[in-house]
Formats: sequence, structure tokens, C-alpha cells
Amino acid sequence: VKIATLSIGKEVVSGEIIDTNAPFIARRLFDFGLAVSWHAAVGDDENAIIDALKLLSMECDAIIATGGLGSTVDDITTRAAAHFTGRRLILHQDAIDHLATFRSQERGGFIETNERQALLPAKAELLNNPSGTACGYFLNHNNCILFFLPGVPAEMEAMLDQSVLPAIVSRMHSRKVLKTRMLNIFGVSEVQIDQRLKELSSPEDHLDISFYPMFPYVRVKLRGEGLHAAEVDDVLDRAVQQVHERFQQCIFSEGETSMQQAVAALLQVKNQTVAVAESCTGGGIAAMLTEVPGSSSWFMEGAVTYSNSAKIGRLGVSAALIEDVGAVSHEVAEAMAEGIRSTAGTDLGLAVTGIAGPDGGSALKPVGTVYIALSSARGTTARSYLFSGNRERVRTLSSAMAMDWLRRHLLSL
Amino acid sequence: VKIATLSIGKEVVSGEIIDTNAPFIARRLFDFGLAVSWHAAVGDDENAIIDALKLLSMECDAIIATGGLGSTVDDITTRAAAHFTGRRLILHQDAIDHLATFRSQERGGFIETNERQALLPAKAELLNNPSGTACGYFLNHNNCILFFLPGVPAEMEAMLDQSVLPAIVSRMHSRKVLKTRMLNIFGVSEVQIDQRLKELSSPEDHLDISFYPMFPYVRVKLRGEGLHAAEVDDVLDRAVQQVHERFQQCIFSEGETSMQQAVAALLQVKNQTVAVAESCTGGGIAAMLTEVPGSSSWFMEGAVTYSNSAKIGRLGVSAALIEDVGAVSHEVAEAMAEGIRSTAGTDLGLAVTGIAGPDGGSALKPVGTVYIALSSARGTTARSYLFSGNRERVRTLSSAMAMDWLRRHLLSL
Repeated sequence: VKIATLSIGKEVVSGEIIDTNAPFIARRLFDFGLAVSWHAAVGDDENAIIDALKLLSMECDAIIATGGLGSTVDDITTRAAAHFTGRRLILHQDAIDHLATFRSQERGGFIETNERQALLPAKAELLNNPSGTACGYFLNHNNCILFFLPGVPAEMEAMLDQSVLPAIVSRMHSRKVLKTRMLNIFGVSEVQIDQRLKELSSPEDHLDISFYPMFPYVRVKLRGEGLHAAEVDDVLDRAVQQVHERFQQCIFSEGETSMQQAVAALLQVKNQTVAVAESCTGGGIAAMLTEVPGSSSWFMEGAVTYSNSAKIGRLGVSAALIEDVGAVSHEVAEAMAEGIRSTAGTDLGLAVTGIAGPDGGSALKPVGTVYIALSSARGTTARSYLFSGNRERVRTLSSAMAMDWLRRHLLSL
Repeated sequence: VKIATLSIGKEVVSGEIIDTNAPFIARRLFDFGLAVSWHAAVGDDENAIIDALKLLSMECDAIIATGGLGSTVDDITTRAAAHFTGRRLILHQDAIDHLATFRSQERGGFIETNERQALLPAKAELLNNPSGTACGYFLNHNNCILFFLPGVPAEMEAMLDQSVLPAIVSRMHSRKVLKTRMLNIFGVSEVQIDQRLKELSSPEDHLDISFYPMFPYVRVKLRGEGLHAAEVDDVLDRAVQQVHERFQQCIFSEGETSMQQAVAALLQVKNQTVAVAESCTGGGIAAMLTEVPGSSSWFMEGAVTYSNSAKIGRLGVSAALIEDVGAVSHEVAEAMAEGIRSTAGTDLGLAVTGIAGPDGGSALKPVGTVYIALSSARGTTARSYLFSGNRERVRTLSSAMAMDWLRRHLLSL
């Protein structure tokens, strides 16, 4: 099955909005063993839409178009679809009913509906939209199924999962079982990941292994296919184990679990509380930890001690020590970790001090020099890193590395 | 001139990577008064690339393709380009020279080059790539110029600006002057922005006004064109003034200046220092402020006082007050702002306390209830907000609103 995606809208083609719909659709199709052969984007221009439908329908068996189904005059996808397929626009009763349902739920006049939205090409079939007024639909034309979905991601995603994917998969008449697994890695370069995955003994025909950089992490995705679920699970279990053997402790989570969610789960399970003292990361680590719902049960406080006087006053770092070895040093990182742990009264104290740049570097301590320290009942350890890149990159890597310290400590690695 | 962009690569079409090259090219073209008529993406598949070049070259006068120019066997863009144009691949001396230059600069074996990269279609002209080994080039075929650029954003962007845009603009034989201005707005809904911009008295033919949501901000973009720079500046000055009249204090910056950069510049000019006490935003405001290089001269410290004991111990908030009115309250927000200002010894103390959700809400104080307070020599003020949406949205809006408080205070608004 050859499938195309078509994103419609001035905001997409002008580049001011990054289109996330097309990648979302591609990822979902991939999970069903399908690939997007063509992706195209055009503006809110009737002729451009017609041209795109013409070209894509010659190449593909299905087109999934998003955008341009709203109630304003800019929304001309449906007019273009009618012209392209040579059909008249008629009022569809189920679309009128859909709009009426939403109108009756309206509170405070936020939802704008328009009879115009129920005008769909003849013989189009409405797709259920549980979360909005837009009337998505599909129609068959010249051996190609054309799906039209709204551009609002939440509406598009629900309709894709509920209606579009089942329709496409049922047409494939396939009995294949497809399953995917994901492993998330931190601290290994892409080149190394590539090499180690290639070593994987005879990756089988019904096993696809790919990896995707999601800075500062890398995601490894395994997709297995076969005739029986148990057999596919076996293949995947084996492959997951092989990936684990190769990357071991660098795998911080599976599936969609983020680094901060993985750390949060460990803190909860191990019944540990944490407080953070940050200098160059400027609150980034605290923000990551508190992103997780329920973090108030294990995250007590963060101190963004940017100035020396804050390090001294808030964390009890000795002024003489800072004078002696500098605020960016092994010793001050340790003192910060111990200081935040004791003043906050937590099980764990995590600290980061470094030079994110662009200024502040020296020959001995260039921009990118970062010290991370962790204090616990077991004692305090610190280590220096030298990260390359600009201010943002140094801060992101420092925050991720500090989170990884927490994870490794909680796992006693 | 009709222009197409073509993104080539498995990682683009599989949806695992969000393609930022095509939007970047579209934005740059827009600044020269040009629009992308078609955007397409295909995988690392020779036939798919050839099909795409065929279809796009029928529709457009120029194609800007990115990706697939690397040194590995997956990189087959050039082979596809040669097949499509019916040319042989030959070793280009200037490409060999380019690779040699990079190889001589190599340190530590990081740069992988390959003679293969110097094999380009006959009569292709090399484009200078100042930042990498990839050999980008262009060639003419059937009245269409085909540009091939590497997919690495830094390399692509430099080559686009230095070589591709000048080549396209020079072919337009246009004497038109094009200029753009941008205004960044916070605190006005998109619907209101749309309405107020539409009111703008007779937007002239040579003036284009558009706006783009960049949550939690909205960017208004004005593009003027004419024969003389002074005349275009006049039109734009007038339009910018009209936009200012309509949105006044909600415009926080012009051009590419972010909210945090605008606030940073004001703190510097007004010679004011700031410290931040955060509860629900969890360090997000401190992280925004310290994103700006040089922030250590005006940002003294941040306290992420998540627990009540941290609010009491770090900021001197009275335990009885928290008991009385709750940690999420007008009074506690004020006490936090005053506490961080006096303990940090700064000119300004900014505080946020609220319920980001998903748990913790009540009938009186539902999820999304947020109090912001600012303390200065002039006194302390606090206000409550009710933001809708999930945890992430509430935190983002709270942080942006707190930053906007700083901005308005520094401007005495």
C-alpha cells in the first residue's frame, strides 16, 4: 500500500509553524508496518490543493490530508476536494447532527460552528470526530482513498486512531501481527549506537531495528512482525535483551517514559526525597523534576544559587573555599550538594556548578566545564565534565547528566 | 517564481524526526517575497527521489532539496539526481579540493570523508559549504534549477544564505526592495489579534500582515515591498505604529528578541537585580532568566520552594499564615516575594504559587489557580489567575505571565 500525507495551510507552508501532524501520522503508520511514500504540503490555495491531490493520487493508494476544514473562508480544502473529484457539495445530515451535538454542549460561546462545515462532497463518508466540530470525511476516487482530517492535532490524532488506521489496515487484508518496543539511551554517541546495533547477530527479516536522536537522548525502536503474537513477542524479547547487553546501564527507560519520569518512579519506589542546588543549569533540573505530576511527594526544594553569596548564605558553602578553589570546582560542587541536603533535610542532595558560556571560561576551566555532585547517607561524590557546544547545549547536557546521576545512584549502579 | 522544497531521508518520512529544514527555507524565502508552492518529503529511495524531482520540476521553477548527500551508502540523492537528469557522475575537482581542505583541518579522526562525495552529476556547480564536508551543488534541467543541500541544519542554513537565495533572487531580475518587521505579543488571544489586525485601515497592496502563534506568545509579521528602501521603511513604520496602537503594552519585543531577552535588557538598563521564589513553576522562571548570557550580573538566586517547610525556612513565610490561608493564596504569594527579596538582598522579588495539576485542585481553588506576586521598594502586589489546560500549559503560562510582570514593572506600566 502506498500512502501519502498532505498538510494544507498557509501556516505550514510558510514555515512559521512546524508541522507535527505529518510526522505523527508517519509514526502511527510505521507501527502498523506501513510507510509514508510521499509527503507534501501546500498553502490555502484551491489550485495548489487540487494539483497536490492529482499528483499524489496518481502515485498512491491512500492520501491522508490534514487542515483547511474549519469554518472560515480560508478553509477551502473541501471545495478543492469536490472540484478534484468532480462532485457537488451537498449538506450531509450526519455532519449537521455532529455540529448540533457540539453546539448543544457549548458553554460561553467558545465553539464557532457554521452550517458551511456540513457541506461535503457527494458520497463522502463522515469520520467521527469526538473532540471538535470539524467534519472530517473520506471518499474514494480513481482507486485512491482520500481522507480529510482537521489540522488541530488533538482532533486529527483521535480521528486517525479511531477511523483512518482501522480503515487502511482492513483494506490491507493482512493477518500479520506487528509490535514495537522502544528503548531510550543516554550517554552513548550515535556513531557507537549505530556500530553496536549493526553487530546485532543476524537481524532477522521480520525484525526492524532503527534509532533516532532525541537530543540529549537516543531512542532505539524495534519492530517485529509475524503471524502470531507469541512468536513476535519472542523475537522482540530476544532483540530487547541483545540491546540491553550492548548498552546496559545507559538504557534509562523503555517506551515513552522520559528520563524525569524514570527518575521519579525510582525516587517513589525507593522512598527517597531529593533537593537540588543549581548554578549553571539555572533551575533547569528542578523544572525537569517538577514536570512530573505528584513530584511534591519526593521533591522538597531547589536552590538556584547563581551568586556566590547565595551559595554561601543558602547552602553554607564556605566563602574561603570559593575564594580558594573558585565557585566552579570539585570542592564547591561537593559543598553545594552537602549543603542543600542538610538544609533541606532530604535523603539526596544534587548539585551542579559550571561555566555554560559564552563568557566566563579560562584556559584551565574553559566554557563547558561542569561539576556534578551527589550527596547521600553513603557520602558525597563529585566529577567534572567538559561539554562542547553553545550555552543551551551545555545546560541541557548538564541537566540530563545530573538526572542520570540520580538514576544510577537509585539503582546502585 | 514557483519554488518547491524536497526533504530527503528515512528519518524525515518516518516521522521520528521533525523536519525543521523545510520550514527554515520557507521562512527565509518569505523574507525575500517568495513563497514555497510545494513541499514534499521522500525516504532514501532512489525511485521515490526521481519521482519527486520529476513531479516537482513540472510544477516549479526551482527545487531546493535537502538531505542524502553524506558519505554512507544510504546517501543516494546524487545518484537519483544523475538518473533523473540523464547525466553521468564524474569526479569534480572543486569537490575534491573541498574535501581535502576539510581533511587537512581534521583533528582526532572525527570527520569522515569519502572520495565518493566528490562524484557529482556532469555540469553540476558546487555550492560553497563553509561548515562541513558535504558537497552541495546545483544544476539546470528542463527550465528548473535544482539545488541539492546537505540535511545537517547548520550546513544547509549557511549554504542557503550564502549561495542559494542570492542565486534565486538574481534570477528574479527584480528591483523590488523587501523588508520585514516582527512584533511579539503576550496576553491577547489569537481571535482578538485577528480581529484587530483586520481593522487596520486599508492594508495596502505592498504590505502583508500575518500572525503566527508561538505559544504562549503570538508573533505579528509585517512585510513591505516597493521600489525604494525609504518608501518601504515609511510603509512599515506606519504599520508598526498602527499595530502598537492596537496592542500597546502587550507588545513585549520586536524582531527575534525573546521575552527573557527583553526582560534581561530592561534589568540591565534599569540597573536592577532580581531573585525568584517558585512553587508550581518549579524552577522554570529561573531557567528562563538564566538562559540569557550574562544573567549573573542581575539574577542573584532562585528558590524552588516546593514544600511548605522550604517556604517557611528559606523565605520566612509564617507557618501560621500557610495554615490559615493555604500555600496557594494571595497572602503567601506576597510573603514569598517579600521573603526572597529580603533574603537575597535584591531590588526585585518575584514569586509564583499555584496548582499546576493534575491533582491538588479543590472547588474553591481548582487546578490552574495561580498567584503571582512582585515585591520592590515601591511595595508588594499580588494577583490571582485561572489558567486552563494541562500541567505543562499551566506552568508555561504561569512562567510567561511572571516574566511579563517583571517587564511591566520595569517599564512602570
